[in-house]
Amino acid sequence: MDRTLIKDLKNSIGSQVKICGFIHAIRDQGGIKFLQLRDGSGIVQIVILKSEKEVFDAVKDLSLESVLEIHGLAKEEKQAPGGFEVQAMEMIVLSAAEPELPIPVVEEKGGEETEMTKRLDWRWLDLRKPSKSNIFPVWTALEDGFREYFLKNGFTQIYSPSLMNTASETGSDVFEVKYFERKAYLAQSPQFYKQMAMSAGIERVFMVGPVFRAEPSFTTRHLTEFTGWDFEASYINDHFDVMSMEEDMLISGFKSVKEKIGLDIEVPSKPFPKITLKEAKKLLAEKGVRSEKVHDLSPEEERTLSEIIKEKENSDFVFVTDYPIEARPFYHMRHENEPGLTKSFDLIYKGVEVTTGAQREHRLGVLEKQAVEKGMDVATLKDYMNFFRYGCPPHGGAGIGPARIIMRMLELPTVKEATFLPRDVKRLTP
Amino acid sequence: MDRTLIKDLKNSIGSQVKICGFIHAIRDQGGIKFLQLRDGSGIVQIVILKSEKEVFDAVKDLSLESVLEIHGLAKEEKQAPGGFEVQAMEMIVLSAAEPELPIPVVEEKGGEETEMTKRLDWRWLDLRKPSKSNIFPVWTALEDGFREYFLKNGFTQIYSPSLMNTASETGSDVFEVKYFERKAYLAQSPQFYKQMAMSAGIERVFMVGPVFRAEPSFTTRHLTEFTGWDFEASYINDHFDVMSMEEDMLISGFKSVKEKIGLDIEVPSKPFPKITLKEAKKLLAEKGVRSEKVHDLSPEEERTLSEIIKEKENSDFVFVTDYPIEARPFYHMRHENEPGLTKSFDLIYKGVEVTTGAQREHRLGVLEKQAVEKGMDVATLKDYMNFFRYGCPPHGGAGIGPARIIMRMLELPTVKEATFLPRDVKRLTP
Repeated sequence: MDRTLIKDLKNSIGSQVKICGFIHAIRDQGGIKFLQLRDGSGIVQIVILKSEKEVFDAVKDLSLESVLEIHGLAKEEKQAPGGFEVQAMEMIVLSAAEPELPIPVVEEKGGEETEMTKRLDWRWLDLRKPSKSNIFPVWTALEDGFREYFLKNGFTQIYSPSLMNTASETGSDVFEVKYFERKAYLAQSPQFYKQMAMSAGIERVFMVGPVFRAEPSFTTRHLTEFTGWDFEASYINDHFDVMSMEEDMLISGFKSVKEKIGLDIEVPSKPFPKITLKEAKKLLAEKGVRSEKVHDLSPEEERTLSEIIKEKENSDFVFVTDYPIEARPFYHMRHENEPGLTKSFDLIYKGVEVTTGAQREHRLGVLEKQAVEKGMDVATLKDYMNFFRYGCPPHGGAGIGPARIIMRMLELPTVKEATFLPRDVKRLTP
Repeated sequence: MDRTLIKDLKNSIGSQVKICGFIHAIRDQGGIKFLQLRDGSGIVQIVILKSEKEVFDAVKDLSLESVLEIHGLAKEEKQAPGGFEVQAMEMIVLSAAEPELPIPVVEEKGGEETEMTKRLDWRWLDLRKPSKSNIFPVWTALEDGFREYFLKNGFTQIYSPSLMNTASETGSDVFEVKYFERKAYLAQSPQFYKQMAMSAGIERVFMVGPVFRAEPSFTTRHLTEFTGWDFEASYINDHFDVMSMEEDMLISGFKSVKEKIGLDIEVPSKPFPKITLKEAKKLLAEKGVRSEKVHDLSPEEERTLSEIIKEKENSDFVFVTDYPIEARPFYHMRHENEPGLTKSFDLIYKGVEVTTGAQREHRLGVLEKQAVEKGMDVATLKDYMNFFRYGCPPHGGAGIGPARIIMRMLELPTVKEATFLPRDVKRLTP
């Protein structure tokens, strides 16, 4: 007999069904017993009559969160939550749970949840809570919408390696790996590799994969390993082309979440508000918000700027552009007329930076000069520089942090809650 | 002016166009000069007349593989390859290539290509060859077809971490990472994590990400880091359900490649041939092929078995099932009636193993017993065992090596050619 999902029971009223799930609640009323069974699609009441002696007697040995297979009759029942119930005739314990759960799975009443560290220790139990069941479906739909944009617009998917022979970009905050008789390092971003794809003539690429940051950060938005989305495109005119692509990508992603999950979110419309860092600092100063970061925005400034833009332009998104060279890596292209400013941007969504992007410098001579100016050892960049030695189209792209988008979209308190298994300085489990 | 892709020139005959690409060939006939320009979509002939003096004079300074922007008139020209040409009126050198290329980009005639090691050193130049331009579009389409199957069938996408606190599964062949003041290890597979998702009540998951193997292997099918696809599903009856899902997934993927890329491949049909390891060994013995691997197939046996099945059943795919416990990890479920055999399978595609799958043992007591029998230290498996302590649905799944599928589909000599940037014992660059 095929299994029926709880959400589909309404189509089987009056029929024999087989349903499977975790025991969400047990209620013994003496002459009649009730279970709540929870699967990935919902929760349903199971009623067990005394006349079904075998099942009835077995209920006393059940523990919460055990996994059952129930055969029975699907019925309408106005008093049951959802308006349906299943009258059990056969019950198979597929997996018995030990009776003492380390953390509660039923939603905790009265506000205070179990402390996050403990919940993350038992992540698989914490994720069973119905309130958390939409995090990864939303992620899936968001990514699906992004991919739809990419595939419609001639992008090719590539995967780049995490293992590299030199510490990428800055050399700091990089994890070192014992690689046979030598050392390797974990990539902090696929930046160089996606630029290599441009040099390989793969004109538009998108990619998804882990990025590693050996930063001892203890904020709500930092992890030591996280999933990054990236894209890069050749033959752009400037960073505005890149922002335009990201707008289309995000619109497609948000639409997908709204349509597929039915989440009540606002799908942004094009163009998103754009503001230079200089203008942003001016607006912030008017509000009395200042930070020590002269060439960048502090988290507080990002939050306040979002509030200002929300009020002025009713947008959850704002692009901040034209960061000074001090705040950007050597490979960001500079403005011809204002060489102190880069053709770069960040995207802020509901107060949190979710993207960094730019047009890249593809002219070898200029690139070398900029690296030297930044005090970098050009010899260690030889492999990277070679990408530009035998022809490379002008290009630009962006890197996106999906967990941050999900965090703000679902109003979760930290990226850890939006990540299947977060990793930080202290956490390598489960 | 918007750029026209070379493949779309046919719609612009008689019009001014802007095209961009790499210089594939230069031919100077004195009074008239020709270029071949190559973009991601094709190659077109550029004709430069003496009357366009500025462009005409500039041609002598051009080098192969430089990147140009050409403005000119799109024309029909029967003698040009493809039947079109562009008569150049303006030419901008977007990126000049140094004149001596380290490896040739134009297809090498007369058979022998540059040796692979050197080509991989200059991977981005090697990938410019038109003969290699379909590798990643095929990968993209294949993955898109897989995802289509997953999304239509209620799977959720998750990403699992690469960093873990203990060496996964076997403890051997694991890369060690310096993680702040302690050690971490790189995941050899997302196996435990996808099983954790089953325990978390995410009933069906798919995932893609890097897997790391510190094996000193020097074969055509091994890498130290490669992209793996995985799926896992709850409430299956047995491993045949898992194979059925993989059949649908592969059919969807192959269809997608055929439709979107136009590649002339055979889309498999359901069900794929299935044979137990014991039967496979018998067929192989009849052909005189034997190996020292009693409980598994050697590469030669895989190739021969594929030939046998191709001849008998005209299928490029064959599932080999029921591996003995000696060949399988402790968590594979065993047959009730034949406890020496597991509910497991490998999938062989054109002579190469591309998948390993199984129903997993979800009953804690049985799982612990099997681990002990395998001589494992159950204490080090405590975190894993906990996934099964508070209820876990029956489940199974599979892990798929996409580069191996692409290798055989495109008849590439090694997985390295199917991987954007391969990593092996000796190679960490580019």
